[in-house]
Amino acid sequence: MTEKTIPFSAEKLAEIMAQYPTPFHIYDEKAIVANVRRLTRAFSWAPSFQEYFAVKAAPTPALLELLAKEGVGADCSSLPELILADLAGIKGESIMFTSNDTPAHEFVKARSLGAVINLDDITHIDFLEKHAGIPEMISFRYNPGPLQKSSNTIIGTPEEAKYGLTHDQLLEAYRIAKEKGAKRFGLHTMVISNELNPDCFIATAQMIFNLVVEIKNKLAIDIELVNFGGGVGIPYRPEDTAVDLEYVGRGIEQAYNDTIVACGLGPLKIALELGRSITGPYGYLVAKAIHKKETYKNYIGLDACMANLMRPALYGSYHHITVIGKENAPLDHVYDVTGSLCENNDKFAINRALPKIDIGDTIVIHDAGAHGHAMGFNYNGKLRSAELLLKEDGSVQLIRRAETIEDYFSTMIFSNSADEVKAALK
Amino acid sequence: MTEKTIPFSAEKLAEIMAQYPTPFHIYDEKAIVANVRRLTRAFSWAPSFQEYFAVKAAPTPALLELLAKEGVGADCSSLPELILADLAGIKGESIMFTSNDTPAHEFVKARSLGAVINLDDITHIDFLEKHAGIPEMISFRYNPGPLQKSSNTIIGTPEEAKYGLTHDQLLEAYRIAKEKGAKRFGLHTMVISNELNPDCFIATAQMIFNLVVEIKNKLAIDIELVNFGGGVGIPYRPEDTAVDLEYVGRGIEQAYNDTIVACGLGPLKIALELGRSITGPYGYLVAKAIHKKETYKNYIGLDACMANLMRPALYGSYHHITVIGKENAPLDHVYDVTGSLCENNDKFAINRALPKIDIGDTIVIHDAGAHGHAMGFNYNGKLRSAELLLKEDGSVQLIRRAETIEDYFSTMIFSNSADEVKAALK
Repeated sequence: MTEKTIPFSAEKLAEIMAQYPTPFHIYDEKAIVANVRRLTRAFSWAPSFQEYFAVKAAPTPALLELLAKEGVGADCSSLPELILADLAGIKGESIMFTSNDTPAHEFVKARSLGAVINLDDITHIDFLEKHAGIPEMISFRYNPGPLQKSSNTIIGTPEEAKYGLTHDQLLEAYRIAKEKGAKRFGLHTMVISNELNPDCFIATAQMIFNLVVEIKNKLAIDIELVNFGGGVGIPYRPEDTAVDLEYVGRGIEQAYNDTIVACGLGPLKIALELGRSITGPYGYLVAKAIHKKETYKNYIGLDACMANLMRPALYGSYHHITVIGKENAPLDHVYDVTGSLCENNDKFAINRALPKIDIGDTIVIHDAGAHGHAMGFNYNGKLRSAELLLKEDGSVQLIRRAETIEDYFSTMIFSNSADEVKAALK
Repeated sequence: MTEKTIPFSAEKLAEIMAQYPTPFHIYDEKAIVANVRRLTRAFSWAPSFQEYFAVKAAPTPALLELLAKEGVGADCSSLPELILADLAGIKGESIMFTSNDTPAHEFVKARSLGAVINLDDITHIDFLEKHAGIPEMISFRYNPGPLQKSSNTIIGTPEEAKYGLTHDQLLEAYRIAKEKGAKRFGLHTMVISNELNPDCFIATAQMIFNLVVEIKNKLAIDIELVNFGGGVGIPYRPEDTAVDLEYVGRGIEQAYNDTIVACGLGPLKIALELGRSITGPYGYLVAKAIHKKETYKNYIGLDACMANLMRPALYGSYHHITVIGKENAPLDHVYDVTGSLCENNDKFAINRALPKIDIGDTIVIHDAGAHGHAMGFNYNGKLRSAELLLKEDGSVQLIRRAETIEDYFSTMIFSNSADEVKAALK
């Protein structure tokens, strides 16, 4: 069970809404920091530990800076993400560049930033060498394929996943990379997504530790960095239980001692690239009820839509909803909570038991702090909302402005004069 | 069966690619115009006919202008779409504003443009009156609910759809609107999406004609405009057969004569709001193969990704693929064709039989002319591509520039100085 709380009072929220029109995303700095520190503590046993935040989950400078202050690095997979991480003060090997189907210029940038380059394919060794040179430190992404059957549905069975190298390719890749001059080696995998079972993470670590031993035995190569990927889910539903990070940390410590230490290997740098679980539960989409409709069902229409949060429409995902001021009211109404996009799947909730909602009510949608704003599109002319940071001292900072129609028009080429466009926008 | 052709030679395409880097969308002006004229001819029997192009399918000024020259209007459902239509020279009642969960300022804009306002809900009569006044011409969207069982899966069963008024609400709505001073009336429905069975469209028209008679009999109100919505699918697969527009036109004509004319009603303005079938088959996403990978499957990586075309990743949709120069080569390889997004569902095709593909090959993805560029997002720092128009005279016009990292950064608030941001972008 997970209690679904919000980090502001109704009065505080009203104050914020008086300054920033809905919809907006708001992130809870204090909770994010506490969460990162808890993660770091759970791995304090490790010779060294690095969380690389999956930038795609929440690519907003202030959030990256906040995380960087806590020692968090960046998991990047595109040129804009590399630049963002660099601007946020995340430098050198605090960036891990894990990309697939990678254009040459992205390898060049990753190399120039001194990021840990994590190759997705054996052919990328030659490609990297040709375009950017082989760095001293190089990492490879392992795809266990049918060697590890996964019941996790989002990432699918590993052998259906486009990512990574097979077992045999992996061994060959280290051999080639060493031959080409690489001196330090990383090993990465990412076979889990949005998973709540803590044992999955321990099993993944064990698989990787076994590989480290095998690579040492077969190739006499010492792996320096192991990255178990991300995939820690969050308890979207009140009946879900969050992953017990301490349990995961202890389980991985045990596997480390039993495998790495017992074989006389190490010390290893232990890394994760969590995104969702770092910021997800601590970001909220705040909207207003602007419409009530009763036809074959009862609808509550919000001023937000799937452009602000795609997950319910895209995956049918559950996101908890709190109606401000009605936290203790009986859940005696059943609503579809909709956005205004001209798509029938633009619904934040379907058949959700909620208190009676009135037009003007403030609606808070939980767990919107990762893969929320980041996935927004402009379909139907919808504009992406602002992002706010609720600071530890209670003040509120605008960390991303809302899109305007001018933004939406910015790549369009009009036959109208600039004055006509300006006039039409009024 | 549908032959999957492309409107340019390999040489012409190479010429275009020399000027515009891949990926890009390119639209075939001649084919779009011919298609619209064919549609208009199929309804030439109608007292008057109006196609309102669903702007969300391809919200690009040059395309709207091209359509406007052919007499096509605009189906808009947001403020930016209204402004776009207006700038494209689509004026007054050539715009139909069909929105749900609508904010007041969008009604105000629609009213000021003289658009036909099509209300989605009975409560919107008072809302419209309060914020924008009741116009002389008003339309309502009908949702037949369980009265019309549909097997169409995208829009779902009408009683599960958030759109429109029930039968009883509809009759009440016309009564109220008339009482409040409306003098001219429209009737709209949209119960079909991406459908290839032509009889569905005739059945929808018959349903609406029956309602016109019922509204006349019960309320003594003459409906002036009937809009059957869109939903004409396109033959994405070579084995699909396109909707026979002439058959649909004749079928609706028959229903019109048997119902409207036979009852002494009319003349009615007949309207559709097709989007997908107007531009979809005449737009192509052009990309290059930049990566080949062999693990548990064979992969071809493109320089395009789901940011350019979401449908395969989102819906598992089929989009035909042509490899330029290998149109007649045997389809003796099986590939997953992927984009570089860090999402395993970023695949344009799965297990697709294709000719042997080499790095550097030009890949044309068909039927990307609607709900293609328009649905693109910036997830993972991916940038939306340019759009080109292949003109009737063979020249090529840039109709939307590609996004840049500066665009991606435009709403971000950096703690870095402007110079630092500029330097990082270099």
